[in-house]
Amino acid sequence: MNRELGVCYYPEHWPQEQWAEDARRMSDLGLKWVRIGEFAWSRIEPRPGQFDWEWLDRAIEVLGAHGLRVVLGTPTATPPKWVLDRHPDMLAVDADGRPRKFGSRRHYCFSHQGYREESARIVTEFVRRYGRSPHVGAWQTDNEYGCHDTVLSYSEAARRAFRDWLRARFAAPDRNDGDIGALNRAWGNIFWSMEYDDFDDIDLPNLTVTEPNPAHALAFRRFSSDQVASYNQMQAQIIRQHSDAPISHNYMGRVTEFDHYKVGADLDIATWDSYPLGFLEDRVGATAEMQRRFARQGDPDFQAFHHDLYRAVGRGRWWVMEQQPGPVNWAPYNPAPAPGMVRLWTWEAFAHGAEAVCFFRWRQAPFAQEQMHAGLLRPDNAEAEALPEIRQVAAEIAEAARVQPSSASVALIFDYDAEWAWDVQPHGKGLSYFGLVLDHYRALRRAGLSVDIVPPEVDAIEGYRLVLAPGLMHTPPALKEALKGSDATVLLGPRSGARDAHMSIPVPLPPAMPGFDVTVSRCESLRPDMPEAIDGGGCILGYREHLDSSAPALLSDELGRAVAIEEGNLIYMGACGDRAALDRLVAILCERADLPCANLSDGVRCRDTAAERFWFNYNLEPIDLDGVGHLPACGVLRQKLWA
Amino acid sequence: MNRELGVCYYPEHWPQEQWAEDARRMSDLGLKWVRIGEFAWSRIEPRPGQFDWEWLDRAIEVLGAHGLRVVLGTPTATPPKWVLDRHPDMLAVDADGRPRKFGSRRHYCFSHQGYREESARIVTEFVRRYGRSPHVGAWQTDNEYGCHDTVLSYSEAARRAFRDWLRARFAAPDRNDGDIGALNRAWGNIFWSMEYDDFDDIDLPNLTVTEPNPAHALAFRRFSSDQVASYNQMQAQIIRQHSDAPISHNYMGRVTEFDHYKVGADLDIATWDSYPLGFLEDRVGATAEMQRRFARQGDPDFQAFHHDLYRAVGRGRWWVMEQQPGPVNWAPYNPAPAPGMVRLWTWEAFAHGAEAVCFFRWRQAPFAQEQMHAGLLRPDNAEAEALPEIRQVAAEIAEAARVQPSSASVALIFDYDAEWAWDVQPHGKGLSYFGLVLDHYRALRRAGLSVDIVPPEVDAIEGYRLVLAPGLMHTPPALKEALKGSDATVLLGPRSGARDAHMSIPVPLPPAMPGFDVTVSRCESLRPDMPEAIDGGGCILGYREHLDSSAPALLSDELGRAVAIEEGNLIYMGACGDRAALDRLVAILCERADLPCANLSDGVRCRDTAAERFWFNYNLEPIDLDGVGHLPACGVLRQKLWA
Amino acid sequence: MNRELGVCYYPEHWPQEQWAEDARRMSDLGLKWVRIGEFAWSRIEPRPGQFDWEWLDRAIEVLGAHGLRVVLGTPTATPPKWVLDRHPDMLAVDADGRPRKFGSRRHYCFSHQGYREESARIVTEFVRRYGRSPHVGAWQTDNEYGCHDTVLSYSEAARRAFRDWLRARFAAPDRNDGDIGALNRAWGNIFWSMEYDDFDDIDLPNLTVTEPNPAHALAFRRFSSDQVASYNQMQAQIIRQHSDAPISHNYMGRVTEFDHYKVGADLDIATWDSYPLGFLEDRVGATAEMQRRFARQGDPDFQAFHHDLYRAVGRGRWWVMEQQPGPVNWAPYNPAPAPGMVRLWTWEAFAHGAEAVCFFRWRQAPFAQEQMHAGLLRPDNAEAEALPEIRQVAAEIAEAARVQPSSASVALIFDYDAEWAWDVQPHGKGLSYFGLVLDHYRALRRAGLSVDIVPPEVDAIEGYRLVLAPGLMHTPPALKEALKGSDATVLLGPRSGARDAHMSIPVPLPPAMPGFDVTVSRCESLRPDMPEAIDGGGCILGYREHLDSSAPALLSDELGRAVAIEEGNLIYMGACGDRAALDRLVAILCERADLPCANLSDGVRCRDTAAERFWFNYNLEPIDLDGVGHLPACGVLRQKLWA
Repeated sequence: MNRELGVCYYPEHWPQEQWAEDARRMSDLGLKWVRIGEFAWSRIEPRPGQFDWEWLDRAIEVLGAHGLRVVLGTPTATPPKWVLDRHPDMLAVDADGRPRKFGSRRHYCFSHQGYREESARIVTEFVRRYGRSPHVGAWQTDNEYGCHDTVLSYSEAARRAFRDWLRARFAAPDRNDGDIGALNRAWGNIFWSMEYDDFDDIDLPNLTVTEPNPAHALAFRRFSSDQVASYNQMQAQIIRQHSDAPISHNYMGRVTEFDHYKVGADLDIATWDSYPLGFLEDRVGATAEMQRRFARQGDPDFQAFHHDLYRAVGRGRWWVMEQQPGPVNWAPYNPAPAPGMVRLWTWEAFAHGAEAVCFFRWRQAPFAQEQMHAGLLRPDNAEAEALPEIRQVAAEIAEAARVQPSSASVALIFDYDAEWAWDVQPHGKGLSYFGLVLDHYRALRRAGLSVDIVPPEVDAIEGYRLVLAPGLMHTPPALKEALKGSDATVLLGPRSGARDAHMSIPVPLPPAMPGFDVTVSRCESLRPDMPEAIDGGGCILGYREHLDSSAPALLSDELGRAVAIEEGNLIYMGACGDRAALDRLVAILCERADLPCANLSDGVRCRDTAAERFWFNYNLEPIDLDGVGHLPACGVLRQKLWA
Repeated sequence: MNRELGVCYYPEHWPQEQWAEDARRMSDLGLKWVRIGEFAWSRIEPRPGQFDWEWLDRAIEVLGAHGLRVVLGTPTATPPKWVLDRHPDMLAVDADGRPRKFGSRRHYCFSHQGYREESARIVTEFVRRYGRSPHVGAWQTDNEYGCHDTVLSYSEAARRAFRDWLRARFAAPDRNDGDIGALNRAWGNIFWSMEYDDFDDIDLPNLTVTEPNPAHALAFRRFSSDQVASYNQMQAQIIRQHSDAPISHNYMGRVTEFDHYKVGADLDIATWDSYPLGFLEDRVGATAEMQRRFARQGDPDFQAFHHDLYRAVGRGRWWVMEQQPGPVNWAPYNPAPAPGMVRLWTWEAFAHGAEAVCFFRWRQAPFAQEQMHAGLLRPDNAEAEALPEIRQVAAEIAEAARVQPSSASVALIFDYDAEWAWDVQPHGKGLSYFGLVLDHYRALRRAGLSVDIVPPEVDAIEGYRLVLAPGLMHTPPALKEALKGSDATVLLGPRSGARDAHMSIPVPLPPAMPGFDVTVSRCESLRPDMPEAIDGGGCILGYREHLDSSAPALLSDELGRAVAIEEGNLIYMGACGDRAALDRLVAILCERADLPCANLSDGVRCRDTAAERFWFNYNLEPIDLDGVGHLPACGVLRQKLWA
Repeated sequence: MNRELGVCYYPEHWPQEQWAEDARRMSDLGLKWVRIGEFAWSRIEPRPGQFDWEWLDRAIEVLGAHGLRVVLGTPTATPPKWVLDRHPDMLAVDADGRPRKFGSRRHYCFSHQGYREESARIVTEFVRRYGRSPHVGAWQTDNEYGCHDTVLSYSEAARRAFRDWLRARFAAPDRNDGDIGALNRAWGNIFWSMEYDDFDDIDLPNLTVTEPNPAHALAFRRFSSDQVASYNQMQAQIIRQHSDAPISHNYMGRVTEFDHYKVGADLDIATWDSYPLGFLEDRVGATAEMQRRFARQGDPDFQAFHHDLYRAVGRGRWWVMEQQPGPVNWAPYNPAPAPGMVRLWTWEAFAHGAEAVCFFRWRQAPFAQEQMHAGLLRPDNAEAEALPEIRQVAAEIAEAARVQPSSASVALIFDYDAEWAWDVQPHGKGLSYFGLVLDHYRALRRAGLSVDIVPPEVDAIEGYRLVLAPGLMHTPPALKEALKGSDATVLLGPRSGARDAHMSIPVPLPPAMPGFDVTVSRCESLRPDMPEAIDGGGCILGYREHLDSSAPALLSDELGRAVAIEEGNLIYMGACGDRAALDRLVAILCERADLPCANLSDGVRCRDTAAERFWFNYNLEPIDLDGVGHLPACGVLRQKLWA
C-alpha cells in the first residue's frame, strides 16, 4: 500500500486570490490530501439559516483542480456566537460549577439536546452539499473530541442526561423504568446513608464534601464517554446517508476521557494529531531529565504508542491528521524540532501502518490563538524549516517499495474503562493506568518488539504469542476465560480483576482467574522514594499487592514474599515495577513465548512491517547498529527482513 | 484498671445471617466493645418519619447475646438525601462560596437551624428506643466533627448566626442588643474605614480583596468552634434525658478548627481515631525524610501527643475509637503497617491511659468510599494481617498486671484559640502553633519525659514541676498570674501574650508578665534557609523576637542579642528553635525543675504509668536499652518502676 | 535642590490628645511632610451626606502648627460599608467570577459608574474644604492603584464598559458607532468562528474553554488600564478646580496592570511605596539563593529600577511616599532590615532624584490588618529600631551639599503595553517582559552605568548615547524610525516589533526595521534546564529566535547560527541571555556608544548625580573600592565627580 502526505488548510483565512497558488505549491510538494472546513461555521452560516457556500465550493474546486483530495470537517467544534445565543445553557460546566464561556473552541456540552440538534442540522447541510463531490475523499467529524478537558461537564443538561443514562443502565426487567434499589445495591450506597429513592435524587459527583462513591464517579465517567460516542454516532449516521466517502475523527494524544474504541466503531478511519514536542512537555508524564534530553525529538515511545492504539481504534485504518512540523504554541516550552525529526516522525507513522500523514498546517496564521504555531510556510509565504524534510519524504515515498503493514506477535491491552477506574481510585498519588501501560509498552520496545495495542475483547487477543493485560481493573468473565484458554503467554496484574462491573471489590478476591491459584490479600501504595528490591534485580515502585498462592513465586522480594506468580500460561505480577523490573519481566515473557528479546540502545527504536524493520534514532548522536548499519542522528534506517 | 479492646461494625452492610457468626468471632478474639449505628440513618428512617428499627434491635440483641457491649452512634454525620430535600440550604459552603454537595458525608452546616432540629429529632428517637438497653454501654455523638474541613462554613445560615454571636459577645450592658461601637473599637475597624453601623453589616471574612481584619477572622474562628460545641451539647443533653450510659465523641488527629475542651465538657469520654500511617503522610507536617523512614510505623510522637491531648479533653477518660489495623484508603500513599506496629500502637494507647482501643473496622467493605480500607477481616471473611497481633494483645491484657495511669510531672499547654490566632496571622509562611507545640512535645519525649497536655486554665497547671506554655497568643491575666505564682518552672514564648482578647497587640507590649522584665520590641519571620545560630548550640528557625530586658540573657545569638530571658520561675524564649535548640532548652528546664533528662535513641519513646515504664520502638531495627533490656523492632517493653 | 523627609500618619487612629506630641516629635526628627487622610472616609462621612470635618480640620491645624506640610489623600481606596449598600454591584469580580467582598480595601471596580460618582462627590468635598489650606502642600489621589490585583475586574460593569471602549476604538469612520467587521478582521476572529455580529456579543476573556484570542485578551488589558487612567483623571480634574497644590499618586512596586505613564500624565508628582524586603520575597522574581542572601537588604536593583521608572512617570518629579522602616506584615517572610539599610534606601532614593522620602508609618498600629507592620515608633510610643538611622539621614541632609539630579547617558525603554502582550503570550513558561527589562537593567548597573528609564515614545529617547529597547512587542512605526535615525547605539530584540497594534504577527516578518536586514524566521521557547551556549561566552536561556540576515552575526551559537545582528547603529538580539550573555552584550553596547563599562562587585551599585557618584553596598560585609574609598556594610559613600 502506498503511503500519502497531506496538509491542513484554512482557505477562509486567506484571500481567494491566493488559493490557486497554494494548491499548486501543495501539489508540487507531493501532497495528496488537504483537510479543510472544521472551524468555518461562522463563514458558512454567518446568521441562523443564512448560508454562504460559494467560497467553500470554490475552495474545494480549486484544490480538486490541482489533483488534491479533500478531507472535509464538520464545523461543530466551533459553533458561532449566535448558536450560543439560541442555547444559552449549551456551555459545558467545569467541576467547580463554572460555565466555560465562548471565546475559544469546544464550548459545548455533549449532553445538550439543543446543541445536538444544531449539530445535526449543520452536518446535514454540509453533507447534502458535498456528499457526492468528486473532490471530497473523506470526512472528519468535529475536531479533537476531549481536547481542553471537554468531555466531563457538570451542567444541568449533563445532570438530566446522567439520570436517564442510569435509569437505562439499571432498568427494571419488568417495567418501563430504572430500579433504584438495584443501583443502591450495586454502588453500596448504604455505606454513608447515600441511598436514593429515585434516579432524580442523583447529582453529579462534583463538589462533594469528601470524595464521592467511586461507583458514582466511575458511572459518571462511563456516561460522559457514552455522550461523546452517541454525539459522534449522530454525525456519522447523517454523513452516511448522503456520502460514501470514509469518515474519520482526529483524536488527540493521551485524551482518555472517552472510549475511543466505541467512537471508532462508528467511523471508518481513526486519525490522530501528533505533537511530539508539545506532548513531551505537557502529557507524557516524563521526568525533567527525559524532557530535557528529548526536548527537540519527543518521547521515543509516545507517538508509537498512539500509532498502535489508534490502529486498533481504526480497525487497521488510521492516519496522522495533524503532524507537528515546527514549534507549537501551547506547551509550557515550545522548542523547534531537531533537524531530521519531522521526517523521522513521518516515517515512524508509516512504519506503524499509517495510510497518510498530514501536516498542521499549511501556512502559519499570523493572528489569533495559534499565531505561534509553525506551519509548512511562514506567514510571509516563505518556506519554513520543516519543508525540505517533507519534500524529502515525498520523494522517498515515490521511490521506495511499498510499506506493507503486518500484525505483531505481541498484544498489549489498553482499556479506557480501566483508565477511568484508576483515575477514580489511584490508591497512591501519581499512579495511573495509562502510565502503567505505557511503562510496559516502553519495556517491550526496549526489547525490540513490535506491539499491537488491542481492546479488552475476546476476539482482539486471538493469534498472539504474548498478551499483556496489566491493570485491567474490571476484567469481564469472558475475557478471563479467553486469556486463560489462550495459546499465548499472558501477563496479568497488578489490579487485574480488582473490581466488579460497578467498582466494588469482588468476592472471591481478585484476580479470581479460573484455575489460577493466586489471591490478592492486601494492597498498598508506596512513596516513590521507598522502592522495594526484587530478589535478583529491579524494584517495586509505588504499588504492591500481597499475594497468596500455593504456587512458588516467579519473582519475590528480598524477604521472600511473592511479587509474581506463574501458573500455566498465566503470569500475575502483583506490583508496579521500575524500568529494570519491567525489562526482567519482559525477558521472562519473551522466553515463555519464544520471542526474541533484544536490548536496544537508549533512544533507538524499531518497528517491523511485512518485509522490513524500520529503525529510528531519537538521539542527537548517530549510532552504529551491529549487523544493521549506520543510524544517523534523528535518522531512519530501513532493514530488509527475510531479504 | 483493666484495658479493653473493641471494634467498629456496620451490621447494615452485611446479611443478617452473618451477624451471629461475626459476634462469635469478635467475642472469641477477646473484644469487649462494638461501635455501631453512626452512618445508618437511611436504614433507620428511610423516609421522613417512617422508621425501621427491627434490624437495629436485632443487631444489638445479637451482639449483646455474645457478651459484647455496644457503643451506639447517633447518625447525624450522614443525613439521607430526603433531609437535604427538606432543607436545601443546609449544606455547608466553602470559602470560595460553593455549596458542598450531597454524595459523601458531613454535608451539613453547623449553623443551620433546620438541620439542628432534624438532628434533635433523630437523636431523640435513638435514645428513646435504646437509652435503657442493657447492651448499650456508651453513646457516641455524630462522627468525627471537623473531618474533611467541615467546621468553617460560609453559608447564609452561618452568616446570620455569626451576626447573632457577635451581638451577644458585644452585648451593650444597658440594653437588649449588641454595641456595634464596641466591636468597631475592639477590632480597630477605623483602620481601613471598615466600621460598621449595625451587626447586620458584618459579612463572613471570605473572598475579601486582601486579607480581612485578623480580629474579624479570629472572631469567625471562635464562632465556628462554638457552633460545633452547641450542636454537640444539644445532642448530649437529649441523650442524658433518656440514658445513663456515658457519652463520647470520636475526635480526629490534628483537627483543630474547634475547641475540643469545650465540646468535651459536655461529654463523659473523649475518643479519637488514630491512623498513624495516614496521618504521617497527610497531617503531621513531617519532612519527606521522616515520612520515608517511618512510612510503615507512623510518626513516633503524633499518636502519643493526641493520647495526651484527648486525655485532657476527656478529663482523664479516653479511648481510641478507631485504630488503624492495615493500609487505609485516603492518604497520598497507603502502605501496610510493619509487623508488630498494630500491637505497638495499641499498647502505647494503654500506656497513655486509654480505657479501650477499638479497631476500624471489623470487615473490609468491598464497596463505596472506603473499599480500600483494611479491616480485621478481609472482604472474603478470611483473617487480615493485623488479626494475630490483636489476638496477642488480647492475651496480653488477660495475663498482664493492670495498667494504672499516673499524672506526669510535666504539663504542656495546648490552646485551640492560640492555634486559630496563629493560623489567622502566622507572620511567616509555614509557621503554626500546632507545629510549635508538637516540636516542644517531641523534645520532651526525646528527653524521656512523660507529659500531660493541659488546657490554658489556671486549675490545669496545678501540681506540675514544669509547665510549658509556648505560643499562647492570648494569655488571659489570671493565667499569667497563675504561671508567675506557680511553684513550677514555666516556659513562655515565643508570642506568649502577644495579643489581647480581640487580636490586637496589647500596650504595654508583650509578654507583659507581671514582675518579669522582658519586652518584645520587634518580631520578624525568617526564611527557613536562613537559620541563625544560638551561641553554644542550636539555631533560631523561622521566627524570632527582639527582647528588651535588664536581665542577663539565658540564651543569646552569636552577636550577643538575647534569645531567651530567665527571671524567677519564668523563662521566656523569643524564637522558634530547631531540634538542637529545643533539646538544649528542655535540658535547662529539666535542670531548673529538678527532673531527669535522658537522651533517647531516635525512634525510641517511653511513657510511665503508676508502676511501669513502657518502652516503644518505632524503628525497623531492634535496640538494646542500657539497663532495661532488649527492645525488638516495632516492639514494646514493660519496665517495672520502683520494683 | 534640597531633599526632604516625611512620614505617613493616621490621626484618626489615635486620641486627639496625642496629636500635638506626635507633631512635635516629627518636627524634632527633621520631618517636613506628613501624609494623612487616605483611609479615613468612614470618619469624615460616617453616614451618607453626614460629614464630620472637625477632627480633620484640627489634625491639619496641629500638624501645620508644628511646621509640617500635609499631603492629603482622597479616601476612595476604602469606601465605607454604606457606599457598598448603595451600590451592591460596585465590587470588582475576579477571573473566577467571584465578587471581591467588603472587609479590607480597594473593594471597587474601576468601571462602576455609580462608584465613580460617589468618588467624585467625596473628592469634591475634600478639595472644597482643604483646597486652599495653607498646610496642604500636596494631594494624593486614592491609594496604590492596582494593589491586591485590583485592576482587572470581570464584573458586569466592566463588561459593559469594555464593549463601549471597543466601539470607540473600532469606530466606523462614517457613522456614530463601532465597526464590528473591523474588529473581527483586526483580531482574526475567523480563526475559530469567533466572529461577532455586534459589540454587545463580546464577553470578557475569562473562563473560556481554552485560551481566548490574544487580541481579545490584550484589548481587555488595555481597556482595564484605561479605566484606571480615566478614574484618576476624574479625581485630578476635580482637585485642580479647587487647589493649586501639586497632585500625586503613590504607585506600587511591580504593579504593571495599568499604564503608569498615562496615569502620571494627569498628575504632577509620581510617588511610590518602596518595601525592599517584602518585594524581594514577593515580587522581584529572584532565586531562593538571592532571597536568602539579600533577605535583610533587599534586591540591589529593584528599588533603583522603580526610582528610575517613576522618575519618568513623574516627568522628573517623584517621591518615595512609603519607605519600609522595619519588618512588614505581608510577605511570605518578614525579616528586619540589617542595620544601615533604612538609611541606605533613603539615600539611594535621593541619589536617583527623589524630592522627598516618607516613611510608613509614624507609629505601629496595634490593631487590624497591618498590626505587624513596623513604624518609626512602637505601639507603646518608644522609638523603633529604624529611628536613629532616620535621625542620621535628617542630619546628613541638613549638612551635606545639595543633591542635583542629572540625566543619564543610557536610556532603557519600559513599555506597559509590551508587558501585557508578553503576559498574554509569554510563549514559554516563566518568560516575562518585566523580567527581561530588569535583567537588562541589572547588567547596566553591574557595568556601573546610570540609567534613565523612558516610555516608548519618540521624544523620550532623544539625547541618549545608548538606547535599549528589548522586548517591545509592538513597536510603532514612528518609534522604529526614531530608533533607526537616532545618533544613539540602539539595542533591539528579542520580540521587538513582533506584533502589530492588534496582537497579530506583521508581514513582512519582525522586526521589520527599515533598512535593517534581519528577519525572525522562527521563535522557540526553551526549558530553563537547556541553556544553549553562545560562542565566546554566555548562554541563551529560555527563548530564542532564528535570524535570517545577509549581515554577519555579531554573536553566534556554537553551531554558527546568528544570535545577534548588527547594522549601523542597531543591534538586534534574537534571544534571552543569561547574566554572562547580558554582561557581554552591555560591554559591546558601551564600546559602540563610547561609554565606560565597569565590572562592579556583587551587591555594590552606584548612581551619578550632577556632581557626585553615590555608592551603595547591599552586602553585609564592607568593601574597599579602588580609588574611591571604604564602603561599609550596608553603607553609602559619596564620591565627588569632576572635583
